[in-house]
Amino acid sequence: MAVSKKIQASIERSSWIRKMFEEGKVRKAKYGEENVFDFSLGNPDLEPPSKFNQILVELVNDPAPGQHGYMPNAGFVKTRQAVADYLNKFNRPRFSAEEIVMTVGAGGALNVVLKTVLNPGEEVIIPKPYFVEYNFYLDNHQGVPKLVPTKPDFSLDCDAISAAVTEKTRAILINSPNNPTGKVYRKEELKALADLLSHYSGKFGQPIYLISDEPYRKIIYDGITVPSTFNVYNESFVVTSFSKDLSLPGERIGYVAANPDMSDKDMVIAGLVLCNRVLGYVNAPALMQRAIPFLLRDSVDISIYQKKRDMLCDGLASIGYDFIKPEGAFYLFPRTPIEDDIVFVAALQEENILPVPGTGFGGPGHFRIAYCVSDKVIEKAMPGFEKVMKKFV
Amino acid sequence: MAVSKKIQASIERSSWIRKMFEEGKVRKAKYGEENVFDFSLGNPDLEPPSKFNQILVELVNDPAPGQHGYMPNAGFVKTRQAVADYLNKFNRPRFSAEEIVMTVGAGGALNVVLKTVLNPGEEVIIPKPYFVEYNFYLDNHQGVPKLVPTKPDFSLDCDAISAAVTEKTRAILINSPNNPTGKVYRKEELKALADLLSHYSGKFGQPIYLISDEPYRKIIYDGITVPSTFNVYNESFVVTSFSKDLSLPGERIGYVAANPDMSDKDMVIAGLVLCNRVLGYVNAPALMQRAIPFLLRDSVDISIYQKKRDMLCDGLASIGYDFIKPEGAFYLFPRTPIEDDIVFVAALQEENILPVPGTGFGGPGHFRIAYCVSDKVIEKAMPGFEKVMKKFV
Repeated sequence: MAVSKKIQASIERSSWIRKMFEEGKVRKAKYGEENVFDFSLGNPDLEPPSKFNQILVELVNDPAPGQHGYMPNAGFVKTRQAVADYLNKFNRPRFSAEEIVMTVGAGGALNVVLKTVLNPGEEVIIPKPYFVEYNFYLDNHQGVPKLVPTKPDFSLDCDAISAAVTEKTRAILINSPNNPTGKVYRKEELKALADLLSHYSGKFGQPIYLISDEPYRKIIYDGITVPSTFNVYNESFVVTSFSKDLSLPGERIGYVAANPDMSDKDMVIAGLVLCNRVLGYVNAPALMQRAIPFLLRDSVDISIYQKKRDMLCDGLASIGYDFIKPEGAFYLFPRTPIEDDIVFVAALQEENILPVPGTGFGGPGHFRIAYCVSDKVIEKAMPGFEKVMKKFV
Repeated sequence: MAVSKKIQASIERSSWIRKMFEEGKVRKAKYGEENVFDFSLGNPDLEPPSKFNQILVELVNDPAPGQHGYMPNAGFVKTRQAVADYLNKFNRPRFSAEEIVMTVGAGGALNVVLKTVLNPGEEVIIPKPYFVEYNFYLDNHQGVPKLVPTKPDFSLDCDAISAAVTEKTRAILINSPNNPTGKVYRKEELKALADLLSHYSGKFGQPIYLISDEPYRKIIYDGITVPSTFNVYNESFVVTSFSKDLSLPGERIGYVAANPDMSDKDMVIAGLVLCNRVLGYVNAPALMQRAIPFLLRDSVDISIYQKKRDMLCDGLASIGYDFIKPEGAFYLFPRTPIEDDIVFVAALQEENILPVPGTGFGGPGHFRIAYCVSDKVIEKAMPGFEKVMKKFV
């Protein structure tokens, strides 16, 4: 066998998604790029703030030596201090540079945390629907996902979480604003979750970590806020990136923040730094690290995404689609009018509309629309959405 | 326990190296930065070619949209095609963009290859002395290192390699020019290795891969060349980065090249692309990818490193140190005049000279001097090197 058994199985398992992607490419070639409505990827449609390029040019022209060289594996102290200062505006525990590890995006951050804390066979609870890439990240470190349902409005179901806790539970991994639902967890939910985790941490004599994946924290609508997990639970990490709010997903820059009030903090941070190194990341890309202190308070224009959300939601509601209106991120997760979301998505594809079946997110009977696309794509897809709805109801 | 058992053990095991690093910091604070001679890290002393910054500025000012966004996980096609074209100048097999996967440095590249090919418990043969970070990279993917000795001149010992092959052998991992020895493997050695690997691949009915880690390929002296592993063995990968030859280690840009004549190539490449994604790298940093096509034929001024090598070698030889003169990279690996290299390095440390014990590279009875430092550091350290040598002989 040329590749490992597990990788071969993964390649084969994911091949139907790949086939859909291939189908999209074929359709774009056949019908023209502008006549295919691709809602499949969370690749932001907006450009980074214009400030970003100005800052890069200034940094590149800075003649100080060694700026593209190695720095401490955790990242430049100046960058980590800036992140700490930023977090101190919104959180009760007081961060210093020490608790921040700059990473290769949120994907890198999450792998660093999971490798640091997981013994083989230990479990991580994940509310579903969820970002399925988490399965790979857990498996990288021999962790086991324990999927639990959320309530009908996609809020946390603490009874379901409680029922899923075992002696092997090492962490719960949440994502708010959520991909694929756009749900933002409320303070009361997080407090209830924290109480539950504290209870079981005490019972089993070791912390159950709360890992909060927050790359969409700044992409929120209707004036709501995303409550801090740090404020409600000490044994907590935030993993995040600048991929979505600054539209930089290709540049791979993010960080882990460990709660300053965490138990055994020094050991945990030494673990994060070691894992950042030995997973082959070594450190987050240097130039992007240097840009971050100037961009922590910036984002793309979120009102543009809100407008896209409203256009999409109003359009789909008027033709009979049923969904929970997203509070953040740039995904809509409507119910499919028939049980089989793969069949429904195939029908949309016939109209050159390319979303992703909910099955791909542990949420069958739904489909995900990534609406980080141009207004025109949303507008021009509506007749197709209507035609397919009429076909099934 | 706060962190996983394995990570805790790693933190504790590596703590004596950390202590030496801390000792260095203490000494720098006590005696002044300029009176401490730090030969511990392979962080290039030279700045990137001035062309590099000009190219970055041009790329940042390019108004085309989506340049910081996601691209295919393997990287921009334009970058991969440029790498393929470059490789086609020096290799018999004909590369296309398809066989190139851009990665987060050589560390990322190596993890991607190892995850792609290793089943749990499978073995990778590594000639020693070697870059010990390989142990972590193998362990990330549940691989097992099988260390084999090299000959007294650090060339490959095919008898030792042959004796180490088992049914579980999945790959051999070589590094030329070598860290820590500066050795460059000759074409005849590589051919003998290829014959051996072909023999056992046939015997066991599956390929034993040759993985060649080549970040120092351009850093070579005295007009020698580094022969191509692609030309002698089909089941081969090269992993590399631009960290050393362009002095960009902090920017994390490198690649994997898979031999175009490899068996089951499509599956292997699908595995590389999948692993690049699921290990959380997702893709190599976008801006650096865009710069690479303009820099493939460039490097820092290698003659500067050669001058440092000569200054160091001449100096140490004249005061009685015994070593194999490096043919490439920027490391010297002298014998210690006493058996215990940790004791010897501690004595050097008393003179504010900070190399790394050979034990840290699977080469006890030696120590590694990273001479990618200013000429002044080499010059000013000589009296200390002499004093310590006299103490022990």
